[in-house]
Amino acid sequence: MIKFEEALKIVIDNTKVLPFEKVAITEAHGRVLAEDIIADRDQPPADNSGMDGFAVIYDDIKGASEENPAVLELVGEAKAGGEPPKVEKGKAAAIYTGGLIPEGADTVIQKELTKVEDGKVFIFQELKKGANIRKQGEDYKKGDILINKGKKIRAAEVGILASVNKATVYVHQVPKVGILTTGDEIIDIGEPITSPSQIRTSNTYALYTQVKEAGGEPVILGFAKDKPEDLIEKLRNAITCDILLTTGGVSVGDYDLVKDFVSVELGVEILFWKVAQKPGKPLAFGVWGENKRKLFFGIPGNPVAAMFVMEAYVKPALRKMRGERNIFNPLVKAKLVGGYKRKKGDRKEFIRVNVSFENGEFLAKPFGKQGSNILTGMVNSNGFGIIEIGKTQIEDGDYIDVMLFDTEFLKGSEND
Amino acid sequence: MIKFEEALKIVIDNTKVLPFEKVAITEAHGRVLAEDIIADRDQPPADNSGMDGFAVIYDDIKGASEENPAVLELVGEAKAGGEPPKVEKGKAAAIYTGGLIPEGADTVIQKELTKVEDGKVFIFQELKKGANIRKQGEDYKKGDILINKGKKIRAAEVGILASVNKATVYVHQVPKVGILTTGDEIIDIGEPITSPSQIRTSNTYALYTQVKEAGGEPVILGFAKDKPEDLIEKLRNAITCDILLTTGGVSVGDYDLVKDFVSVELGVEILFWKVAQKPGKPLAFGVWGENKRKLFFGIPGNPVAAMFVMEAYVKPALRKMRGERNIFNPLVKAKLVGGYKRKKGDRKEFIRVNVSFENGEFLAKPFGKQGSNILTGMVNSNGFGIIEIGKTQIEDGDYIDVMLFDTEFLKGSEND
Repeated sequence: MIKFEEALKIVIDNTKVLPFEKVAITEAHGRVLAEDIIADRDQPPADNSGMDGFAVIYDDIKGASEENPAVLELVGEAKAGGEPPKVEKGKAAAIYTGGLIPEGADTVIQKELTKVEDGKVFIFQELKKGANIRKQGEDYKKGDILINKGKKIRAAEVGILASVNKATVYVHQVPKVGILTTGDEIIDIGEPITSPSQIRTSNTYALYTQVKEAGGEPVILGFAKDKPEDLIEKLRNAITCDILLTTGGVSVGDYDLVKDFVSVELGVEILFWKVAQKPGKPLAFGVWGENKRKLFFGIPGNPVAAMFVMEAYVKPALRKMRGERNIFNPLVKAKLVGGYKRKKGDRKEFIRVNVSFENGEFLAKPFGKQGSNILTGMVNSNGFGIIEIGKTQIEDGDYIDVMLFDTEFLKGSEND
Repeated sequence: MIKFEEALKIVIDNTKVLPFEKVAITEAHGRVLAEDIIADRDQPPADNSGMDGFAVIYDDIKGASEENPAVLELVGEAKAGGEPPKVEKGKAAAIYTGGLIPEGADTVIQKELTKVEDGKVFIFQELKKGANIRKQGEDYKKGDILINKGKKIRAAEVGILASVNKATVYVHQVPKVGILTTGDEIIDIGEPITSPSQIRTSNTYALYTQVKEAGGEPVILGFAKDKPEDLIEKLRNAITCDILLTTGGVSVGDYDLVKDFVSVELGVEILFWKVAQKPGKPLAFGVWGENKRKLFFGIPGNPVAAMFVMEAYVKPALRKMRGERNIFNPLVKAKLVGGYKRKKGDRKEFIRVNVSFENGEFLAKPFGKQGSNILTGMVNSNGFGIIEIGKTQIEDGDYIDVMLFDTEFLKGSEND
């Protein structure tokens, strides 16, 4: 049985970054830049004022003090967006933040150091020549690269895109991820339950949400019964997808059904099946489509196993397709509260934990019931604590690695 | 001048949680539950198998061993979703994970401990009575609260909503946030530049994105020139918004224009103006509308000041309106690399830093140029390092609080 690290390497090595598309900058948040962003003008485009105050000639204010103020004639105002007056010897122009420096002026005195009376400006302090002036091009010059391609777009990047007059921008495409739920026992929301053996799906919608969380475009391909004709029909809907996820149908009893049909119908080449991990042992992975650029994940039906596989394998692959650099969930060292014991150490185990951040360190509390069918435990968890192969006991207070799937706990509440 | 902490308290104390609405669970991700989620049946709904194997009667396998296996007659199979056969003394039924426990059986032997030959099942090990059986209701009982209202909805919660047959769910509404950009000098994307005093807006779209990041619904109300009739016309478009943001028009020179018009046109009651903080000193805040339930933020025009005000004030208020508990950006202690000096300590300063997480601690590197007009510095930053009032010097290696606005650095890359 393949190890977790090898399996993950196979997945990532076989994942290809998607090509480009153009999107409106209002839709670009979270996407990855596929072009360098170039300055279309100097910034600032001309010398301007960093303060509200008066534009003056330095020689006129040299030596000014409380006792011996410089007194200049007020000749008008330089507003942001307006045309500035000219400043000659012995004169001053009112200026506002962002206002162009008037011809002749070389220094700006902030309003707080002045007084205006009868058309005269009294200046009570000497400033350095050039004070409070933002020089043309001091931030950047026309033609400079402001953002390199490969950067994930956040608010600052959108602001810069707007400032260089880009309404649209090239970004990497996002993968379309098909979700096919299999199993005679699984029924969708709204369908009537006629037997206690039926299970209302949780995976379909949990996986749908995980795909959205990682910035993919989820597509629900439907619910296939364990019948060849139904599987075939629904698998055909996957041909437009970049990633196909099936849930159920990969454990010992029934793996062959899904495996055979994805191979025959879609040409999936299976690269591994079964990983020495808990939960999620019966994970299958393969590639398909033109240049084998599409991915197939045969995901176990147990809800917690399915969610784990999504966090550990599918989200990183999906982020790589989107062109992202930081593709893996955060991994932190956390102090394990209460310790953890298990009988066998033959698999790498991922236990649900609730992580908090206290006094500068991460604390991880395992969720009581660790059965992979217990989805309610995920509600109180935000990470998977990692128990390495060979380890059967972790003492209270020992440190373990934790893969986080939710960093909300880092935020502060009103009651903190 | 009011202090940062007081200003923030006024904002949060005056922010009211929004009422409810019903949304499809496929759209519920990130929203906050406004109803308790109740189990509609026991989970598991009936006793079922946790393994692929055979359902047997415990008395039949008591004492079984490698040397002395129990030999039982195979009577059919209990598949997940299928109707189980009956198991009588001396008999065994094949069973798959999730399959209902057949009438009569009380124990499941995993496949690995058995052999099947000529319609007989050989069992080479004794297990405890009840082994590998998931009992009806062991996870939860019909009527149990599975998720309490107030919980932010993630993938696990969406999964549980589906599993209890909910296609839609009550969540808190999200605030509609109007963004009005003011200033004669500001022009939108695509408009021709005719003077070096004109500035292509970055704030409009950076703020738009920050509203989206915090889960609000941004609405661009347009660009108002510093003329009463233009301001009035565009302010009127704000009446459907829960939060009104104006950018520009609040520094010493021109505050009165925006302040007067929001007061007269929308009935905004200003609760503070000017905060002892850098950047963002000329921040104005008020309440308006029915029951004063709407918020107004008069945001400075400098791009970095505007983005800072969004992270420190507007996002927390927006999250509170959405019903969230953890409303404040993450605050971490970080080691300041290279130290920091300033001339005056009269304001709480928020310096742009790039935070990384190395060897179990946060490191913060200040961005070189800290001018509040330099948006490119935000591209390389993910947090605001906090310099308290009275402090003018932080030594290299000292610890400061950092308010994070991007936790992407916690993720791992392929090259780590």
